[in-house]
Amino acid sequence: MEKLLDQIRLPQDLKKLSPAELEKLCGEIRELLIRTVSSTGGHLSSNLGVVELTVALHKSFDLPQDQIVWDVGHQSYTHKILTGRKEQLHTLRQKGGLSGFPKPSESPYDAFVAGHSSTSISVAAGLARAKRLKGEAGHAIAVIGDGAFTGGMAYEALNNAGHYGDKIIVVLNDNEMSISKNVGAFARYLAQIRTKPEYYSTRKKIRKGMDAIPVVGKPVANLVSDLIDNLKEMLYHSNLFEDFGFDYVGPVNGHDLDSLCAAFERARVSDRPVLVHVDTVKGKGYAFAEKKPDAYHGVPQFDVQVGSHEKRQPDFSAVFGRWICETASKDEAVCAITAAMKHGTGLEEFSQCFPNRFYDVGIAEAHAATFSAGLAHGGFLPVFAVYSTFLQRAYDQVIQDMAIAGEHVVLAVDRAGIVGEDGETHQGVFDISFLSSIPGMTLLSPATYSELRACLDRAMYRLKGPVAVRYPRGREKEFPAGLHGNEQYQMSGNGKILLVSYGRLSANCCSAAALLRQKGIEVSVIKLTQLLPFPQDLMNRFLQADAVFFAEEVVAQGSIGRMVADLLLQNNFGGKFRTRTVPDRFLAHASVDEIFDDLGLTGEKLAEWIGEELR
Amino acid sequence: MEKLLDQIRLPQDLKKLSPAELEKLCGEIRELLIRTVSSTGGHLSSNLGVVELTVALHKSFDLPQDQIVWDVGHQSYTHKILTGRKEQLHTLRQKGGLSGFPKPSESPYDAFVAGHSSTSISVAAGLARAKRLKGEAGHAIAVIGDGAFTGGMAYEALNNAGHYGDKIIVVLNDNEMSISKNVGAFARYLAQIRTKPEYYSTRKKIRKGMDAIPVVGKPVANLVSDLIDNLKEMLYHSNLFEDFGFDYVGPVNGHDLDSLCAAFERARVSDRPVLVHVDTVKGKGYAFAEKKPDAYHGVPQFDVQVGSHEKRQPDFSAVFGRWICETASKDEAVCAITAAMKHGTGLEEFSQCFPNRFYDVGIAEAHAATFSAGLAHGGFLPVFAVYSTFLQRAYDQVIQDMAIAGEHVVLAVDRAGIVGEDGETHQGVFDISFLSSIPGMTLLSPATYSELRACLDRAMYRLKGPVAVRYPRGREKEFPAGLHGNEQYQMSGNGKILLVSYGRLSANCCSAAALLRQKGIEVSVIKLTQLLPFPQDLMNRFLQADAVFFAEEVVAQGSIGRMVADLLLQNNFGGKFRTRTVPDRFLAHASVDEIFDDLGLTGEKLAEWIGEELR
Repeated sequence: MEKLLDQIRLPQDLKKLSPAELEKLCGEIRELLIRTVSSTGGHLSSNLGVVELTVALHKSFDLPQDQIVWDVGHQSYTHKILTGRKEQLHTLRQKGGLSGFPKPSESPYDAFVAGHSSTSISVAAGLARAKRLKGEAGHAIAVIGDGAFTGGMAYEALNNAGHYGDKIIVVLNDNEMSISKNVGAFARYLAQIRTKPEYYSTRKKIRKGMDAIPVVGKPVANLVSDLIDNLKEMLYHSNLFEDFGFDYVGPVNGHDLDSLCAAFERARVSDRPVLVHVDTVKGKGYAFAEKKPDAYHGVPQFDVQVGSHEKRQPDFSAVFGRWICETASKDEAVCAITAAMKHGTGLEEFSQCFPNRFYDVGIAEAHAATFSAGLAHGGFLPVFAVYSTFLQRAYDQVIQDMAIAGEHVVLAVDRAGIVGEDGETHQGVFDISFLSSIPGMTLLSPATYSELRACLDRAMYRLKGPVAVRYPRGREKEFPAGLHGNEQYQMSGNGKILLVSYGRLSANCCSAAALLRQKGIEVSVIKLTQLLPFPQDLMNRFLQADAVFFAEEVVAQGSIGRMVADLLLQNNFGGKFRTRTVPDRFLAHASVDEIFDDLGLTGEKLAEWIGEELR
Repeated sequence: MEKLLDQIRLPQDLKKLSPAELEKLCGEIRELLIRTVSSTGGHLSSNLGVVELTVALHKSFDLPQDQIVWDVGHQSYTHKILTGRKEQLHTLRQKGGLSGFPKPSESPYDAFVAGHSSTSISVAAGLARAKRLKGEAGHAIAVIGDGAFTGGMAYEALNNAGHYGDKIIVVLNDNEMSISKNVGAFARYLAQIRTKPEYYSTRKKIRKGMDAIPVVGKPVANLVSDLIDNLKEMLYHSNLFEDFGFDYVGPVNGHDLDSLCAAFERARVSDRPVLVHVDTVKGKGYAFAEKKPDAYHGVPQFDVQVGSHEKRQPDFSAVFGRWICETASKDEAVCAITAAMKHGTGLEEFSQCFPNRFYDVGIAEAHAATFSAGLAHGGFLPVFAVYSTFLQRAYDQVIQDMAIAGEHVVLAVDRAGIVGEDGETHQGVFDISFLSSIPGMTLLSPATYSELRACLDRAMYRLKGPVAVRYPRGREKEFPAGLHGNEQYQMSGNGKILLVSYGRLSANCCSAAALLRQKGIEVSVIKLTQLLPFPQDLMNRFLQADAVFFAEEVVAQGSIGRMVADLLLQNNFGGKFRTRTVPDRFLAHASVDEIFDDLGLTGEKLAEWIGEELR
């Protein structure tokens, strides 16, 4: 049987379909999503949740004149399917294939880059303002989850968009959880609205009816008229979104196309800012995902029939999670803070064992950092577990509220370095630069699980002020025996040609050294564990070296190698000095190994590089 | 006549005073504030606005067991007067004297460092949580302005503090403006509450009375009972702060001690999070400041009798302001964005001439950056004018929404480098580090007004992607004649000993060169205008030099000098290389010249340094 989906090349094709056909189309899209993600891996739950929402948006609006800004962007697969990229969907998140996020360079239907949370209303406000200034037609639509609404930027934008009164449409995709179960007062507030829709519909009726109430005979006349006078005031007090100057439409059943289209039509014809509140179910239509949406948030390949049975592999996040549970069971001062990344950062067990000392603050890294500093000031030992790329959001707070204040907070910086399939927006290649610029910061970079534990212990109990412990996504690599050293660094051999690195990349350096040895070139690998303050005795060793090679999976500017170069040069170093880092561009999605290969950071390529340099 | 203030050494002394005496005390404090700030300079309007508020807080609470977290912190002068620092007030903002901001190292009564906006609720939430976990007595109180409430962090914190239900007291100091006239939907919302206090007081009465209403004779009985049923629901819908789980108290007259003490008492005895909404008048009690609170926000020395008649000196901000007006009058695509710094960044004229293209988004740098990117994407030419130190707040947005997206936004980075009297929290010494780490960023650093204009023109019309133009607080310095070069750099002489710098510091380098010449040492000064991409031909010149000295008023890590060191070393440079930068610590308040002297960055000290190095 021919599929409806085969008739859809571009969004306009979808406008010809009947309501029944649209519903059938949604089923076909779901089927395609499940089939594809089960073979490519990717974000599943969020995409299954917005199938009808996306179809209804494309039915109601005309892209690309109307512009949809997807917040975070990992829920844009259906949008990609409907905008000419159905055939490439199987290349999702693979090198050279479709990005897992919206990308204007990939399609004119993608209005803006996305990756980090809570930016869509700001972008849409800018786009709407531009349309208005130019007198151009078209709508700017932000699609944002309830989780992203816990990020302060969403409010900053709401505050302004409502103020200017530009026509902007905010679609609040309320799945009651975002990445994991949503937290905070705002979530409770939404639940209130969801469970009392009659309040919001009745309110308007009352508002209208009020003036028509006759003044009736005593003894209630005065009472009623007093009541009415006061209540009239109150009726103009409204819900939070209306407080911010938005018309509120909803809550709408996010899996009912008719309701969605009706709501979007109301939004379309309005000339004011509108917020459409849509209730969706994460993982909708795939029983396994509906039941455990978290498990299918970002998921590797799986068997559609039996579902994903991925057991958590031991990885750096899991080792961190175990460590903090052990530590907290011995020390009541230990607290853990996360910005909506409980699962990702390995804090699930902690959250269950120590609910009183676990704080998931929502997608609010800035608050998380300062709240941690407050806890530290109050005598506790807070650990803020955060992905490298998201810590960028709290750069100022780390400076102001941790470093200037000298507060002792441990930053557990997960996903440091190349992250792979998530691409440009998620690479953890800036943390060394921005953290190392901060006075008083200690920076540790363990390469193995046991080093991770040792670094965390040191960070917690033997160091002061802010301490960042950074580690990569995934598992530890194997290191050859015979590395000798101390808690600040380890090295192989004792030669005059040094290859310096830290973290997992040091394993590639060891491979390179082994390959070079086969060619008769002796290179000593130095695996740094403490990056800042930089080990003083190492500087002396460097100064006596014939050649120093540095390999890092971060940007060059602000890197450790560049810092060492400066110190060497100022100390009149006369040897050879070379570095290999992430080049001065953003790194698109591909596997970590593919990116390492592209950047010349594999063992073979490092060996080749050094061999040539020493020729 | 003896002053009451003479009896006040510590807050407990104030608790003995009668209401009438407290009122008299407030008058004395005002007098002291006006007298002191007129001779030292500093923040006046905000401090005059919170005299009663501060006295009432100290009357109602017991510091330091109870902890007050001052948001931003520049309104803490009365607090300093009442906590043992009255005698040092005349040393305010001077080297070795009192800081203009709260500092725990200065007094145990200062609960936390402050400087940047919207952090106080996060800190107080952390402190409150710590008290609760330890079972300790005492309150955590955040005092935050309506302006700071436009910053997203305040909401992130509100969302969490309300959720956990920890006892925290938020005092909303609503002066209807913050630094300049407050903007956005939130301001309108507060105005609504302020102008309809009867609504909020009546509401509670109605809530109580409702159940007591008898069911009265027809025909109104049904109507009324229907109404009542529906309205009961509504009455539990409440204001924004209550939506977030806070008890709301207010609005309270912020200049009436009795009302303030009554409100704080209610907050004190509550066991839930409370928000006390206080109305204050900025500049209260000093006619000149009440009339023009903006002019007395941060003010230099002035004559108390005639007020401050400071005319805006031509400075970099003013030149920027003029340039953008001229440019916008010729080009309808030019827009200006500021995060509550209209006056500081010189955008007053623009806001009046081009209100439609002027966006003051509140203290919301993250939104400002992304909103600018949205405008750029929509075909406009946005200029985001922002202080260096506050741009730290938008680091992630500059990466994600400008650089990855490749959006052409001009960042007019004001107050770059040492700022002086505001101290640690405000020094603009990180922007080079964090901006230069971002791929695709162009970084320009003009040293004179004419260079500023030229750089802005280039940034606007001849460059692509994000472009940062950074310039210092204050005025241009004089440069000797005879500098030759191009738009990327200029130099004096053509020697083999190079002293490299950029911005105003290059003037000190020229002085140093002149001093060295007197001693027979020829040094060529290179004044960089384009920092990134780094001028390629200069690298060749450097490689041929005998010695390269670098002077920068930023932190070393991520500096231009360090970048050049790396490039030189990798190109086997054999000459001497030395740098002088801001050392690895935070710089306390002092004048810019004093700090330059401390860091060895004056002409004399630079000459001395180079002389010694070349000996």
